[in-house]
Amino acid sequence: MNQTDSIKELVTEIARKARGASRLLACVRAEVKDTALRAMADSLESRREEIIAANALDLEAARAAGLTSAMIDRLTLNEKRIRDMADSLRKVALLDDPVGEIWDARVRPNGMTVARMRVPIGVVAIIYESRPNVTSDAAALCVKSGNAVILRGGKEAIHSNQTIAALMEEAGCKAGLPNHSIQLIPTTDRSAVPILLKLSEYVDLVIPRGGRSLIETVVAESAIPVIKHYDGNCYVYVDERADPDMALQIIVNAKTQRPGVCNAMETLLLHEAIVDRFLPRVVEVLRAKGVEIRACERCRAVVPDLKPATEEDWRTEYLDLILAVGAVGSLDEAIDFINTYGSHHTDAIVTEDYAHAMTFLRGVDSACVFVNASTRFSDGGEFGMGCEIGISTDKLHARGPMGLRELTTSKFIVLGNGQVRL
Amino acid sequence: MNQTDSIKELVTEIARKARGASRLLACVRAEVKDTALRAMADSLESRREEIIAANALDLEAARAAGLTSAMIDRLTLNEKRIRDMADSLRKVALLDDPVGEIWDARVRPNGMTVARMRVPIGVVAIIYESRPNVTSDAAALCVKSGNAVILRGGKEAIHSNQTIAALMEEAGCKAGLPNHSIQLIPTTDRSAVPILLKLSEYVDLVIPRGGRSLIETVVAESAIPVIKHYDGNCYVYVDERADPDMALQIIVNAKTQRPGVCNAMETLLLHEAIVDRFLPRVVEVLRAKGVEIRACERCRAVVPDLKPATEEDWRTEYLDLILAVGAVGSLDEAIDFINTYGSHHTDAIVTEDYAHAMTFLRGVDSACVFVNASTRFSDGGEFGMGCEIGISTDKLHARGPMGLRELTTSKFIVLGNGQVRL
Repeated sequence: MNQTDSIKELVTEIARKARGASRLLACVRAEVKDTALRAMADSLESRREEIIAANALDLEAARAAGLTSAMIDRLTLNEKRIRDMADSLRKVALLDDPVGEIWDARVRPNGMTVARMRVPIGVVAIIYESRPNVTSDAAALCVKSGNAVILRGGKEAIHSNQTIAALMEEAGCKAGLPNHSIQLIPTTDRSAVPILLKLSEYVDLVIPRGGRSLIETVVAESAIPVIKHYDGNCYVYVDERADPDMALQIIVNAKTQRPGVCNAMETLLLHEAIVDRFLPRVVEVLRAKGVEIRACERCRAVVPDLKPATEEDWRTEYLDLILAVGAVGSLDEAIDFINTYGSHHTDAIVTEDYAHAMTFLRGVDSACVFVNASTRFSDGGEFGMGCEIGISTDKLHARGPMGLRELTTSKFIVLGNGQVRL
Repeated sequence: MNQTDSIKELVTEIARKARGASRLLACVRAEVKDTALRAMADSLESRREEIIAANALDLEAARAAGLTSAMIDRLTLNEKRIRDMADSLRKVALLDDPVGEIWDARVRPNGMTVARMRVPIGVVAIIYESRPNVTSDAAALCVKSGNAVILRGGKEAIHSNQTIAALMEEAGCKAGLPNHSIQLIPTTDRSAVPILLKLSEYVDLVIPRGGRSLIETVVAESAIPVIKHYDGNCYVYVDERADPDMALQIIVNAKTQRPGVCNAMETLLLHEAIVDRFLPRVVEVLRAKGVEIRACERCRAVVPDLKPATEEDWRTEYLDLILAVGAVGSLDEAIDFINTYGSHHTDAIVTEDYAHAMTFLRGVDSACVFVNASTRFSDGGEFGMGCEIGISTDKLHARGPMGLRELTTSKFIVLGNGQVRL
């Protein structure tokens, strides 16, 4: 048996076991899952020396490979970070269990009741390249929502991830979860991912978490549905009828509070009627915060020393202290502009006009549409979902921040007493 | 320009126009859409001679191609069938508009309101090989739910489909719908479908309606999410604690009331404790209805002249008066059996035992799970959804019968008054 065959066998066996675990996990009571999550948290803390020892192997390899100090910092686990991981599991244990919820029940004329029941999706694969805490977070959210999980982390963190996943699986099983609820692919061989992505018989959903090239590779290879998060090229539109002080506050917050994240503002649109009096204030405040501004010709007529924006700027997620600024002639033009150049992630209007607010809410085709609030609130925690497995920029199944409920599906249930069809 | 290039240009242009139409259609009021649907219905009736003339071209080609008389019957349009199509559009006009519904609203501690708003998916492509009435039905459901639709019907019905789609588009536009809300691909060239399935920039969802080979081709080719309906291999499990009269009624109905459809029963499981007394009754009644029975060894020990079932029988959707019958030792075994061999479409238990009913509901991993009712009720109309665009055997986005709501997605909306993130 050559290496590819043996990896195929390994990955297929993991997926097959996950399918078996998922059938059992779907029927596990919330209190058992929550006890298991707390036991996992305790185990991460009490056996932190094992995690730190595994992490040391990853760090040694990272240094030998010449990773940057920022990358090494992200990879590093210490007592504090392990405690944070454990606390995060305890928080998931406190969330409501979404599984089993029944809604939309109606009694049909023949007396039978038709309703929907929330059930786990089944087997979820998470493919990620981030810090080792994704291992514990993602596994916890999947288990809490009744899904078996297959984890595939980045090769830099393989020893850390393996140890974390193994401790969680062991603690979970002792607390009553089915075996193989949490599995990590124990090889860094690149062929494992394409193999996994073909196993639609065993795996129901793939969530890639990482950069665009990772996501594009997963989408291209996958025979399994993928929920993905592409760019967050977020727009703020300041309407003719905006409160300028509120607008300025929101602009500063959306651009500068944390510029490197997906819900930071990347482009500002101004109604042309306010450019003359409002743009100079914006420029002054943002320049004081170190923001580079790239502007359209209409804006440069007012503040001539702004760098000119190209069409590419309207499409760009800078993730940095750079802002594109454009003027538009109307609300409709703003909506068209955002639908054309934005990334359909999160876009906001600042306005005092009720009709404008309602038109913007309906017309902008994005996962999150805000009135008079900073785009930085686009986040599962800020939305009150309690947690976040990711943000979907897709339209099907889940759109926007994904919490526990987005890791479930539904079935129709019919409660009859002998009905037959005439 | 060669033929493939010109078809690529044609299909891309259709998809691009559909995207444009979808942006406008998302904001059209319900009363405009409903008026348009009624105008389309009137147009189909008042201009039925055009439809019948186009249909005559299809029928002529069908006879020349040697299609069976059953196929020719399915293809044939007459005054009565056109009236039925028009009535169906008028019924869709009476349904509630799902678009704009706001739910799950919560006020966050900082005073902003976070909620979900139901919005159209955008552009939906329907690829079908069925009767021409799918053209009008599918277009009506897409438009009602605010989606632009691209239709691709079978080549046998191309003239009928083109005329129906053109009349509907024309009547819709006159009534205020955006141009290009309803488009049909005006060529039978096979290369059009793979081209369409790559246009993920313009098309949000593909729904194939037809046989397994059509669906598999679409899934293999598509870069766009697909919602599909594979087999309906439906099971009925008669529990140890079932009312035998009720069980018999349900069995007869599920198997014989309309055996050629996806929600007919294909396999009957009996708890082994009831095989001796119950199986002979089942065999007698079903044989009188002309049903062929293929049974496991345990069953054949009781009724020896039954044909033996092979493992393949447990997986087979007969769509005919054939039934596989097996004995199981327990409820858990029944659930495992159904999860292993069934098609996850619709499965039923007959039982008087409350705990068994609840365990079956949770444990069977199917789109529809019934207690004490015939599987034949698995249908959007019977579920009270008012209509059905199809039945999904997928788990993501939509599962089971799909109505108008399943042709929508959601966005998060945030209503603030100047909130910024700290």
